[in-house]
Amino acid sequence: MIQWSVMTSPAPWPAVPGIAYGGDYNPEQWPRETWREDVVLMREAGVNLVSVGIFSWGLIETAEGIFDFEWLDELLDLLHENGISVDLGTPTASPPAWFFSAYPHARAVNKEGVPMGFGSRGMASHSAAEYVKAIGTFSSELARRYADHPAVVMWHVHNEYGVPVGEDYSELSVGAFREWLRARYGTLDALNAAWGTAFWGQNYGEWHHITAPGRAPSTINQAQKLDFMRFTDAALRECYIVERDAIRAFAKQPITTNFMAHQSFTTDLWKWAEIVDIVSNDHYLTAADAEGEIGLSLAADYTRSLAGGKPWILMEHSTSAVNWQPRNVAKLPGEMARNSLSHFGRGADAILFFQWRASRAGVEKFHSAMVPHAGTDSRVWREVVELGAALSKVGEVKGSEVRADVAVLYDLESIWAQEFEWRPSEDLDPRERIRAYYERLWRDGLTVDLAHPSADLSGYKLVVAPASYLLSAADAANLTTYVEQGGTLLVSCFSAIVDEHDAVHEGGFVAPLGGALGLTVEEFLPLRESVVVSASLDDGTELAPTVWQEDIRLEGAEVVATHTSGPGTGEPAVTRNSLGKGYGWYVGTVLSVADLKPVLARVYQDADIAPSGLPERVEVITRRGETEDFVIAINHRDDAVTLAVTGEDLLSGDTLTGEWELGAGDVAAIRTAPAAEGGGR
Amino acid sequence: MIQWSVMTSPAPWPAVPGIAYGGDYNPEQWPRETWREDVVLMREAGVNLVSVGIFSWGLIETAEGIFDFEWLDELLDLLHENGISVDLGTPTASPPAWFFSAYPHARAVNKEGVPMGFGSRGMASHSAAEYVKAIGTFSSELARRYADHPAVVMWHVHNEYGVPVGEDYSELSVGAFREWLRARYGTLDALNAAWGTAFWGQNYGEWHHITAPGRAPSTINQAQKLDFMRFTDAALRECYIVERDAIRAFAKQPITTNFMAHQSFTTDLWKWAEIVDIVSNDHYLTAADAEGEIGLSLAADYTRSLAGGKPWILMEHSTSAVNWQPRNVAKLPGEMARNSLSHFGRGADAILFFQWRASRAGVEKFHSAMVPHAGTDSRVWREVVELGAALSKVGEVKGSEVRADVAVLYDLESIWAQEFEWRPSEDLDPRERIRAYYERLWRDGLTVDLAHPSADLSGYKLVVAPASYLLSAADAANLTTYVEQGGTLLVSCFSAIVDEHDAVHEGGFVAPLGGALGLTVEEFLPLRESVVVSASLDDGTELAPTVWQEDIRLEGAEVVATHTSGPGTGEPAVTRNSLGKGYGWYVGTVLSVADLKPVLARVYQDADIAPSGLPERVEVITRRGETEDFVIAINHRDDAVTLAVTGEDLLSGDTLTGEWELGAGDVAAIRTAPAAEGGGR
Amino acid sequence: MIQWSVMTSPAPWPAVPGIAYGGDYNPEQWPRETWREDVVLMREAGVNLVSVGIFSWGLIETAEGIFDFEWLDELLDLLHENGISVDLGTPTASPPAWFFSAYPHARAVNKEGVPMGFGSRGMASHSAAEYVKAIGTFSSELARRYADHPAVVMWHVHNEYGVPVGEDYSELSVGAFREWLRARYGTLDALNAAWGTAFWGQNYGEWHHITAPGRAPSTINQAQKLDFMRFTDAALRECYIVERDAIRAFAKQPITTNFMAHQSFTTDLWKWAEIVDIVSNDHYLTAADAEGEIGLSLAADYTRSLAGGKPWILMEHSTSAVNWQPRNVAKLPGEMARNSLSHFGRGADAILFFQWRASRAGVEKFHSAMVPHAGTDSRVWREVVELGAALSKVGEVKGSEVRADVAVLYDLESIWAQEFEWRPSEDLDPRERIRAYYERLWRDGLTVDLAHPSADLSGYKLVVAPASYLLSAADAANLTTYVEQGGTLLVSCFSAIVDEHDAVHEGGFVAPLGGALGLTVEEFLPLRESVVVSASLDDGTELAPTVWQEDIRLEGAEVVATHTSGPGTGEPAVTRNSLGKGYGWYVGTVLSVADLKPVLARVYQDADIAPSGLPERVEVITRRGETEDFVIAINHRDDAVTLAVTGEDLLSGDTLTGEWELGAGDVAAIRTAPAAEGGGR
Repeated sequence: MIQWSVMTSPAPWPAVPGIAYGGDYNPEQWPRETWREDVVLMREAGVNLVSVGIFSWGLIETAEGIFDFEWLDELLDLLHENGISVDLGTPTASPPAWFFSAYPHARAVNKEGVPMGFGSRGMASHSAAEYVKAIGTFSSELARRYADHPAVVMWHVHNEYGVPVGEDYSELSVGAFREWLRARYGTLDALNAAWGTAFWGQNYGEWHHITAPGRAPSTINQAQKLDFMRFTDAALRECYIVERDAIRAFAKQPITTNFMAHQSFTTDLWKWAEIVDIVSNDHYLTAADAEGEIGLSLAADYTRSLAGGKPWILMEHSTSAVNWQPRNVAKLPGEMARNSLSHFGRGADAILFFQWRASRAGVEKFHSAMVPHAGTDSRVWREVVELGAALSKVGEVKGSEVRADVAVLYDLESIWAQEFEWRPSEDLDPRERIRAYYERLWRDGLTVDLAHPSADLSGYKLVVAPASYLLSAADAANLTTYVEQGGTLLVSCFSAIVDEHDAVHEGGFVAPLGGALGLTVEEFLPLRESVVVSASLDDGTELAPTVWQEDIRLEGAEVVATHTSGPGTGEPAVTRNSLGKGYGWYVGTVLSVADLKPVLARVYQDADIAPSGLPERVEVITRRGETEDFVIAINHRDDAVTLAVTGEDLLSGDTLTGEWELGAGDVAAIRTAPAAEGGGR
Repeated sequence: MIQWSVMTSPAPWPAVPGIAYGGDYNPEQWPRETWREDVVLMREAGVNLVSVGIFSWGLIETAEGIFDFEWLDELLDLLHENGISVDLGTPTASPPAWFFSAYPHARAVNKEGVPMGFGSRGMASHSAAEYVKAIGTFSSELARRYADHPAVVMWHVHNEYGVPVGEDYSELSVGAFREWLRARYGTLDALNAAWGTAFWGQNYGEWHHITAPGRAPSTINQAQKLDFMRFTDAALRECYIVERDAIRAFAKQPITTNFMAHQSFTTDLWKWAEIVDIVSNDHYLTAADAEGEIGLSLAADYTRSLAGGKPWILMEHSTSAVNWQPRNVAKLPGEMARNSLSHFGRGADAILFFQWRASRAGVEKFHSAMVPHAGTDSRVWREVVELGAALSKVGEVKGSEVRADVAVLYDLESIWAQEFEWRPSEDLDPRERIRAYYERLWRDGLTVDLAHPSADLSGYKLVVAPASYLLSAADAANLTTYVEQGGTLLVSCFSAIVDEHDAVHEGGFVAPLGGALGLTVEEFLPLRESVVVSASLDDGTELAPTVWQEDIRLEGAEVVATHTSGPGTGEPAVTRNSLGKGYGWYVGTVLSVADLKPVLARVYQDADIAPSGLPERVEVITRRGETEDFVIAINHRDDAVTLAVTGEDLLSGDTLTGEWELGAGDVAAIRTAPAAEGGGR
Repeated sequence: MIQWSVMTSPAPWPAVPGIAYGGDYNPEQWPRETWREDVVLMREAGVNLVSVGIFSWGLIETAEGIFDFEWLDELLDLLHENGISVDLGTPTASPPAWFFSAYPHARAVNKEGVPMGFGSRGMASHSAAEYVKAIGTFSSELARRYADHPAVVMWHVHNEYGVPVGEDYSELSVGAFREWLRARYGTLDALNAAWGTAFWGQNYGEWHHITAPGRAPSTINQAQKLDFMRFTDAALRECYIVERDAIRAFAKQPITTNFMAHQSFTTDLWKWAEIVDIVSNDHYLTAADAEGEIGLSLAADYTRSLAGGKPWILMEHSTSAVNWQPRNVAKLPGEMARNSLSHFGRGADAILFFQWRASRAGVEKFHSAMVPHAGTDSRVWREVVELGAALSKVGEVKGSEVRADVAVLYDLESIWAQEFEWRPSEDLDPRERIRAYYERLWRDGLTVDLAHPSADLSGYKLVVAPASYLLSAADAANLTTYVEQGGTLLVSCFSAIVDEHDAVHEGGFVAPLGGALGLTVEEFLPLRESVVVSASLDDGTELAPTVWQEDIRLEGAEVVATHTSGPGTGEPAVTRNSLGKGYGWYVGTVLSVADLKPVLARVYQDADIAPSGLPERVEVITRRGETEDFVIAINHRDDAVTLAVTGEDLLSGDTLTGEWELGAGDVAAIRTAPAAEGGGR
């Protein structure tokens, strides 16, 4: 059983009864009569929580030090009178025009040295003293005024840190980077050694000679780039902490900021999870993906894992299409409910949207909303009302948890490092591999946590490492111990290559996992573009690997699949090693989601787990309550499926026994007897 | 009958007998003996008008305030002695090196903040006081010297405004932008409301906080961008007016500047048409398009419409290949004549080329010319001489007009607005849709005007709106009135979505045309990339829509075609509404030119018009003279076609009666009896 | 017989016995114990020459004027004690961090005006006085200290001039450019004439008005760009000469810098060859090309030709994959030896690698090395040792030369000029054409030199001009004389179009070669994208031309192939002209390597040469010694082939007579009797 699944104290949670329902509310764009219409409609839809003030800096602090809270007073009072709670935002993601006019040097600068201009959002330098002062002051003033307002149940700091821009190449940022490096390394000798500056003559003799990895004639030292990403993340966290602490000085409500798990890649969320009171997340479907529910599940599982398994808040998703993708596909009828229930099933006890009412103007006018441009006589509005009604029936699920037998390792530093230039093959994509392995597990009906490679993994039967290019010796030892103690570990190719400084591990490729996997890799054999080769599993199953083969040096592992064409002909494609009480599997190539099926089937046997046996695209997740379990079932298919969960469907009120049908596109939330301790999980 | 077809006063026209023929003449590149050879050859080719001085600033004003007119005196005298008239250019599109050396801040700056460098052309900031002063001075001096020169019959200000660069992000431009905005909006409250700055916290408290929409971390407010495009266009027009007025102080000849209708998209030509004495246009084939004559026709029809239906000048086209496209396909034998006759048939009473003699040096050395690198023993020269001879036979056509029953709406502001980022689907391309609908009408043999949506449309039987994303309430009312009074209106999807500030119309999508079309649109259903769906016309014809479907709310319209696959299955694809005496058709999807055929056939019935019945790619246009008509017929096909126009072919001298053949690739210009008033049109 | 094949004095050559073997050695990255392991392994592998200090500036001159030579003393002594000679590098390709911190204006600036930042390499401005002073000082100090060190046998100035960045758009560079232009043209009138500045109004009245061809609104004058490329190359050569002369003041050993023949395109190597003592070259396979040996042969033949036919040094290649391509394909077993023998067969008497030991850190950590990350129990190490042993057996070949009957013209200025914007078709790629014609000759088993069009070509039976777009009148006359005197010349389309100022030749396209080819070209007929047309050879062979047709004016040539489709139907595709004792062939279109076969077969007849008759991909080259010949045979095929060379295979020790088999992938180096003088060649 994993560490965090034993809750020692209740999570802080906004004082909203039942499942929270609502969204971002930006009434600044509307006249007062619309406000009054809004609260009526909110009540109709069952909305009980709205996020307010996310982009209101310039309308509150109208000039430096001049605060006008009147409209916000009126708004919060109106909401409170109507029983709608408020998640009060600090609008620091978008400083006002006067700020940049007064402090033009406080603008973020891009890699080419161009300072960002006004007119969109999010252009402040995290390292500008005036910015940091201004956000502290604003947060203080806001908290001072509203800490005790009865409508306010939570604080929402900033918006999507790192989006649209995280890295700042300004002189202010470079100065802060040097300080951060000095704190990290202590001496220039240590830094020179860590970065390997002897190569290409990059050694530093003075701290102030160090720059940001901006525009250069060729590829920049990847250790420097990696540290710049870490520094950026740390600088953003410092900004958050300034605001959090300013609020906390006045207010007792939980404080959060909204993540973009596996959708934005600037912030290392394992670290952020430690500094928020509640984990909250924004999620948007990838419109080009006709099976968007898989990416959604990955993001939701990652978010729950960030929350230590505790319930979390879906701070933003969309009722239908978004506006910022190349083709903004609308959600199909019922899809919004399926999406919402999937988040809910995976631990979200708050289902919120961006945004309440579609904006007539501004860059997101084509983003769907709870109240669409078409008004309330519309499919979207009717489904919004239906969803509100549905969520009002499942309040008892609140606080229950999801438990998983399988963990997929997720380390943003490894993704960063692998995505820098000059890797063996640009076709080997860490995000694609994470998705591919996750998708295989999802299609097999297994519930999955995401985990950092340094985590205590002993509660998991299976740990999958799809993209562990950067893996510290300590983390590799953690994985090796996991195997020794009985775990099953599955590692994908190009893992355990470099340490935390992007330096190749002594001993060669994969050496730190050599004990767990029973092999090392002598040489990579990337394939030319679009080449497909062949491999055979030892049971004769034919596979069609792509992208990558390897010259593998077996050191105890047995060969489970072998390449039968390509430069790696005769080399192992899949291996299995036995170490202590556990097993270390290795896939030394790139397999499609389909080709992973027979391979994973073998791995599951070692891990003593089994696929759900349900047809693909039927999503079934269990939330464990104190005395009862709740099974959330979602049928993404175009036909009905047969399920055999016994209990009461909280949504329909039906009592379910024996085998029953879940219609095409339908959802259910079934109160059922708890599974036997340790069984099934 | 449309407003402008009743001419109340004769158009100003350069004093050149018959159809003007010639081109840009840049003798600065050549020694004097070549000049003398040139005029001999010009006479051989029938050239009677050349444009001179377009790029001669630095050779005339050799240093600031130092003018050397000697060579130009000599040139104009030489031309005049040889009976060749001159269109005298102001070379202000390309200020000399000394200007930018003296005034480096007068350079245009791109979106990234990089000032444009010297070595190409067109890099001056429209908002630099020194530039505006310099062009005024130059134009004055030029006009003072040559206003009474007998060779000069016209003035040619600048060259292709907005090309190669229009938008300027310099501080000077930003300052001018603020002034323009202050004049437009009066108060910041009005601007904040118009731009919807409440969204993303962009409200402005001071005019000087406003910037140009340059480099920013995310998408910039589209209303701001739209106003910046309008401002740029206005600033360029102000520059034109400075020069025009400077010339007018001395000279009586007509003044023009050369447009690039539907080939450049920085200048809003409806506005420019009001400030030139004669409309002139440059046109170049799109080499990748094997049926370039269709785009040519669109540009020519647009130009004629800009001219209010009056004759216009084809200021530049090419004898064969251009040099600036990826693959510069040469014209086929006869193609230059066909192109020229098509412009002529569509109202051009002057057929001019860029340029007279191919340049040996400089960036356009591979641009074809009237005298090619190969000299006069060449196909191109022989065709140039033949064309000159042909045009000398059609002088009586001069001044006659083209009339159309069909108008296609063309509003650059709508194109601008739709092409900004973050629209529902990047596959829905307004220029492509304009071309597709135009092409359908062209292939059906119908003569078409282009019109602004605010124009008096009462003279047209059919008005087509292929890309009216931005449509003001007033313009929508204009279209609605048009229908009520008996017109047939055909509107394509994603029209009437936003107002002049890019704000979604109150009432929802298409609401301002709801009365005319009998519907509104509840939600857009963009398709994923490359997806093709199916739809059926009510007569069973199968269609293959792409890109786009919609959730349509019928409010009186009848369904003519229905989607049979895709997310919009069951939704209308084509509808027809009856309002007052007219009809409002709507195509709620993207249909190919071929699929538009059966749809338009139905629309034509309502509009009481009929296709020509000729094979495709046989172009027949009628110019209406005071007492006679002239039918220009062009066969773009590889086989002969049968026509039945009665009259005299001015080119061959043949008398044509009954049915006769027009050979593959051939052209004819037939004097014929005028059509009955009101008939056929 | 060609001029340079008569050696009047022995080439300078580093004092290394036999064939030199080794690579770049960067021990700065490793502790002292690794150094000691390194020399033991070097001896095991037969390494006798290593390049040292290439990137060590900051570790030697640790602050301005402070030199620390201790570690280098120790290293050179260690190498010398172990019998390993040293090629001592000046690390001036990568100035240290302190240099750029002290002299920030000495950074190169890109086209957009962005100064290059630190963190990669090669960012100094060639025109910064401080940079030039610093490299002179460093080279002096290095040479002063090590001129007499017994390990040092050669000097290696800088690294790959022009890579990663050559052009510098800084103010310093612009100033130097103006001086260079003043020296080239003398007067502004001459410059204005040469650049054709009359076009687009670009004439200059003052030298200081001239700028670099940086960011501009449209295409910049190509003559200006061409001169900027020439200037850049000249400025880099001046930097080289500063260092060379500083070293020569102390040292007697030969001095070189490593070229990147046909892989980098900034330096005009014909000019560089004149200022180095020995020609050396770096070569890396194009991983995407499964037949990389062809590009390798082209680079090696070009390098040998640069060396005037004398032996040269392969300064860098790779043992297996590189790291900077999109997909870094590993070398197959034996491929490294085949590659090395091919260089050796084509004249390389030194086979060196980048680098000795794979770097754990830095941007090239995934570049293969002699000692790979996997250590010595690896395929790569075993092959490195085998190759060292093989090279130790072929020492007697050293100094022998390769002679060719065929020359392919190679003029970087012509490649530069053709690759600027606004050419007739972007599909006509000069590098691709050079490769295609070279490849045809390679597949036909012919040995080829590369030659500048101004060279004495009288020793060649066949001269091929695949990409002579820019061809001066003098060079055209040289080619014409070559034909008149009995040579066979084959010219590909779009040749002899412009002179050295990118101005179209008077008389029209191809006019300067009109006499040699018996034709000129009236007009280019580029094809639309992906269009394939047809043509017939006069023997009925069908060809499938692409990209290009022409309207050809025959002036004496006979037609050998005719286009049968496309806009050039009926036009000649291939022609043959007789002039004096020789023949001028012309291919007026783009033919594939396969389609060139029947055409070249006809050309060979006129040139009195014959293909080798061997299967494709069997590479056989002869090096001519003073008394014996050496035949290097390389089988790139997957099957064995039969050869009939008589002699002793120096590698196996076998005596070969009659017909014998060379196994799949195998190599041989056979001492044989010299070919009869003048025969075969």
